Amino acid sequence: MNENVEQRVGLLTAVRNGLGVLHELTGVIARHQGDIRSVDIIEQSENGTRIYFELDLPGSPEDLVHDIGELEAVHNVEAVQTMQKIYGKRIVIMGGGAQVGQVAVGAIAEADRHNIRGEHISVDTIPLVGEQALAAAVRAVTRLPRVKALVLAGSLMGGEIEHAVREVRQQGLLVVSLNMAGSVPEACDLVVTDPVQAGVMTVMAVADTAKFNVARLKRREF
Amino acid sequence: MNENVEQRVGLLTAVRNGLGVLHELTGVIARHQGDIRSVDIIEQSENGTRIYFELDLPGSPEDLVHDIGELEAVHNVEAVQTMQKIYGKRIVIMGGGAQVGQVAVGAIAEADRHNIRGEHISVDTIPLVGEQALAAAVRAVTRLPRVKALVLAGSLMGGEIEHAVREVRQQGLLVVSLNMAGSVPEACDLVVTDPVQAGVMTVMAVADTAKFNVARLKRREF
Repeated sequence: MNENVEQRVGLLTAVRNGLGVLHELTGVIARHQGDIRSVDIIEQSENGTRIYFELDLPGSPEDLVHDIGELEAVHNVEAVQTMQKIYGKRIVIMGGGAQVGQVAVGAIAEADRHNIRGEHISVDTIPLVGEQALAAAVRAVTRLPRVKALVLAGSLMGGEIEHAVREVRQQGLLVVSLNMAGSVPEACDLVVTDPVQAGVMTVMAVADTAKFNVARLKRREF
Repeated sequence: MNENVEQRVGLLTAVRNGLGVLHELTGVIARHQGDIRSVDIIEQSENGTRIYFELDLPGSPEDLVHDIGELEAVHNVEAVQTMQKIYGKRIVIMGGGAQVGQVAVGAIAEADRHNIRGEHISVDTIPLVGEQALAAAVRAVTRLPRVKALVLAGSLMGGEIEHAVREVRQQGLLVVSLNMAGSVPEACDLVVTDPVQAGVMTVMAVADTAKFNVARLKRREF
């Protein structure tokens, strides 16, 4: 086996509850030159906690799985298929329920067409009300893994939400808005009037299987 | 300040790329008696990586933020609002695009009604085709944080997907199926014919603001 070939490995561990367990696990992974790409602490019950890692590893995972299994805090460890392979890129839609639902219909139908051709796109939504709650949710999108684009679906958004949109765009996130009242549309990459089309266009913009490129569009409003 | 009062804290860190950085961070958190509830490694670029923690901490986060900021690998660290507060419980809908879209419309509209009353429910979807891909995605749901229920939306599902459904139900996940061909409906908690109603019922089942309890239903098919 060529030790220089890095591979992405999924590791599911069941561990005892307690402080410092994650510190022990990451110590073993660092010793094996594992570059951790994601960590999920899934459920904590009285019987223990399950922690899921994705990491890039030189060579095969058998030795790492063995050494993690030797830790006193570890009940079980196994190599599993990675999330990137299963769930892939994420689109997040947020705003008012009626409009979020229609954007979702467009985005899901379009994601289906691309996923059939080998893409991995999932569509996440959060129905939400209020300027502060929405601004916090917009900012939090950049703390979620695998998110490529955000759609704001509502009838009136502005103020603090506009500031949040400008911040997350600076961090490289694509932001699409429905055509609506308030200052949010001005702050977005793309403004679309029909909610179904907004969902379709957003998925097209992040799909490698599509030819649609927002930067090349001659207009920004549809 | 009462040192025995635990509080949930969100910590956003910007760190240099490199092996062992997560090990260093978790070491400092363990020294401060922080019980880590979630970790997200958000984006890795050539300039560095952003890692987001949620943890229960005795007392206030100032000392921990200070000590993490002292690490050579850390460019920036700040306390932020937690995700549980922003995104809350998750419903996942997977299957064929046309039907996933309709379940999403019901789930999003219903989640909106509960979120307005103080719940925090978000609705995630993945349009997907194929027995193996779906079975893998069903199993992977239990490795995602904050997921309370899964809806299978399609016209034919069975075989390996049925086994995956039985496994995740044993781990405590609520699984709802559309009325469809194949063996999946038999393996689920609830079978619903109308996709919009399937979405609505699933949200009702996980909302603390609803009176709906699947265990108390006199029938399992609608």
